[in-house]
Amino acid sequence: MSEIRKRTVGDASAVTQDVNDDHKEDVESEDDGKIEVDLLAKTLPQGTNHTPEILDAALSSLPDRWRNWVIRGIFTWLMIAGFCLIIYGGPLALMVTTLIVQVKCFEEIINIGYAVYRIHGLPWFRSLSWYFLITSNYFFYGENLMDYFAVVINRTGYLRILVTYHRFISFCLYIVGFVWFVLSLVKKYYMKQFSLFAWTHVALLIVVMQSYLIIQNIFEGLIWFIVPVSMIVINDMMAYVFGFFFGRTPLIKLSPKKTWEGFIGGGISTVILGLLMSYVMCQYRYFVCPIEYSEALGRMTMDCEPSSLFRPQEYTLPECLQTITKMFNWKSTVTVYPFLLHSLSMSVFSSVIGPFGGFFASGFKRAFKIKDFGDVIPGHGGIMDRFDCQYLMATFVNVYISSFIHTASPQKLLQQVYNLKPEQQLQLYNTLQAALENRGLLNES
Amino acid sequence: MSEIRKRTVGDASAVTQDVNDDHKEDVESEDDGKIEVDLLAKTLPQGTNHTPEILDAALSSLPDRWRNWVIRGIFTWLMIAGFCLIIYGGPLALMVTTLIVQVKCFEEIINIGYAVYRIHGLPWFRSLSWYFLITSNYFFYGENLMDYFAVVINRTGYLRILVTYHRFISFCLYIVGFVWFVLSLVKKYYMKQFSLFAWTHVALLIVVMQSYLIIQNIFEGLIWFIVPVSMIVINDMMAYVFGFFFGRTPLIKLSPKKTWEGFIGGGISTVILGLLMSYVMCQYRYFVCPIEYSEALGRMTMDCEPSSLFRPQEYTLPECLQTITKMFNWKSTVTVYPFLLHSLSMSVFSSVIGPFGGFFASGFKRAFKIKDFGDVIPGHGGIMDRFDCQYLMATFVNVYISSFIHTASPQKLLQQVYNLKPEQQLQLYNTLQAALENRGLLNES
Repeated sequence: MSEIRKRTVGDASAVTQDVNDDHKEDVESEDDGKIEVDLLAKTLPQGTNHTPEILDAALSSLPDRWRNWVIRGIFTWLMIAGFCLIIYGGPLALMVTTLIVQVKCFEEIINIGYAVYRIHGLPWFRSLSWYFLITSNYFFYGENLMDYFAVVINRTGYLRILVTYHRFISFCLYIVGFVWFVLSLVKKYYMKQFSLFAWTHVALLIVVMQSYLIIQNIFEGLIWFIVPVSMIVINDMMAYVFGFFFGRTPLIKLSPKKTWEGFIGGGISTVILGLLMSYVMCQYRYFVCPIEYSEALGRMTMDCEPSSLFRPQEYTLPECLQTITKMFNWKSTVTVYPFLLHSLSMSVFSSVIGPFGGFFASGFKRAFKIKDFGDVIPGHGGIMDRFDCQYLMATFVNVYISSFIHTASPQKLLQQVYNLKPEQQLQLYNTLQAALENRGLLNES
Repeated sequence: MSEIRKRTVGDASAVTQDVNDDHKEDVESEDDGKIEVDLLAKTLPQGTNHTPEILDAALSSLPDRWRNWVIRGIFTWLMIAGFCLIIYGGPLALMVTTLIVQVKCFEEIINIGYAVYRIHGLPWFRSLSWYFLITSNYFFYGENLMDYFAVVINRTGYLRILVTYHRFISFCLYIVGFVWFVLSLVKKYYMKQFSLFAWTHVALLIVVMQSYLIIQNIFEGLIWFIVPVSMIVINDMMAYVFGFFFGRTPLIKLSPKKTWEGFIGGGISTVILGLLMSYVMCQYRYFVCPIEYSEALGRMTMDCEPSSLFRPQEYTLPECLQTITKMFNWKSTVTVYPFLLHSLSMSVFSSVIGPFGGFFASGFKRAFKIKDFGDVIPGHGGIMDRFDCQYLMATFVNVYISSFIHTASPQKLLQQVYNLKPEQQLQLYNTLQAALENRGLLNES
């Protein structure tokens, strides 16, 4: 985090310098695309200096470095406050926010693509990108909502068709885009068009697919969303703080301002604060209950008997620790929420692998000589600058849930059963009844 | 098909011409990357003239144009014969072939990427691409085989772990590649490395994901694989033949040698020959039976009571046709295999949308000024040149099956229910009972 901030201050001149340097050597340059990339740096959104006027006026007396520090700080807390407000707003608010963030991120990535390949004369391409965004959202959101709203959907006739043929409809929509792309090919621009086509698809892969995973996590219970997101934020902030005060040993060439001290300090803080946060949240049904559609109530609910993950459980300590506890005559068991163990894995991932998401984004920005992905958040750059690691984390959490938490739940299967035709549901019911009676699990009545 | 062949003959000089032209105008050129692309055309595999020596000697007396025609013809029939042989070899042979084709296609796409971005000094990158190929294959093939070999796998302890945590293991493997990529970033090559990273991922998306879909289709029954593949081949060949004899009206700028006559003639032939072929294959269990693991036999079987799709069924003709049949005193019903209707949809797709896969590939080749993707098949170019449309078709068939053939069967769901713990099965049973009673489908007893 610190790395981005500092580049923000000093980079405008650095970029210009780079451009000049390259012009001198462009004749023998091995790096063919470099010159154009450097030139294009000027046409790209270089944001971050865009500050609200009132704030600008109030801070005008401060030196540049501090002014930026204050702006960045203010907007960090504003974002955290906003995040809390959205959580208070409930799951629907969170999903809408995810969607908005996704669209903004896609826009930022695509805008960089346009600037890199400098396509101005091809009006179809902008429409095509957005068309693919809508199509893939239709596909992914459909897959999500279908599962959870099965009961409602099955009551309405035409919605049923949309569900049954969801994949086919999505595929047809995609094919329309594909044919449209092929027809839009213009000889002069072949290479640029194909590059942008690939660019769009990679953007979709990163942004849309992963925001779909985020929505899935939200449905598992708000805790699966809030804890990982907060861990990344905590890790970012604490790495910055530790780096600022104790940073000495450089960590990686890619981000010269990141230090081992920040990395380790941030990691330890993430584990501790993550556990603390999880412990508190485990106690509220609002956070731990999966979001389900209740047929009885006719609406979404977040009320449940918390699963065993969120009920305190006694664990026997490993033997090596038991020798210590015996010495002090302590108990050889601990009582914790099992979720805390999962919280531990997540915090380790977010502090060890998470930063690589940041390195990746920062390498990407350097590759195309841009400082930030956009200029939406004063002091922070674009939305994508704040969410680069979140996407990686969301995928981890999703895979983690499906591997360790979610071994085929009756609830999910039931939802699939409700998707069947009524007579098929009855058939399944009868077969199941017979099978259960057969195995003596059910008393014949 | 004709388009590729003809370019093959005359293009060597055309490419050189282009390069010269561009050098004249490169100062004001709007197309920044063009010059390098042209130059690189010389370093890329331009294949196709690579012919076995014996054949070369035997055909040396023929004029160039005819020589190529004969070579291409010979290898077309050789490939068709090879395809039949592999089908005779059974599903395992087909799956292995799919895997080999996939690896070759990936190699061809990646090789073009290397040539385009001229990366020679970065040894890690080649390893990385292959690592990602292996990882994604592990993930996709695992997902496939898990479903079909569930019974066998559950018997072996360590395999069970691989299955339960399959996604997690795959994700970890991917993360290793991701971190490796970030660590391999070198300042000088940032942009090239990111471009190749994207290139690799798009290649994976096209090649690995779709070959996974192909394998899924094979499991549904060989007919779902053989018919679509043959349709694309028939369409290619017949479009060439019709274009050769009657071609007059150009179809699309992208492929100047393709004509409306070829497009329409090819389409009609595909529908007719596709139906004929489906009709014949419907009668053999070898083709229509899904591939399943039989617990009783302890091995894979392709024996079954053919599903209703492959049993002749009586259809009433639509009213407009009935007036005609009444005139001639014919029956107002027809008896056909329901599969023939699906075959019709597939042949329409393969002849209307299929060619766009070809246009896309041919646009791609033009964008990077290459004639063919490789030089493996004399007269045809690379493997990818022959399989471009197959991938699009395979996706269509897969989506088609999941939407129209495979609408969640009670049988499959029950199988999943039986995999739950006994108490979960009871819970599901009770909830289902309540839901069905609630909706009045079940009488409360």
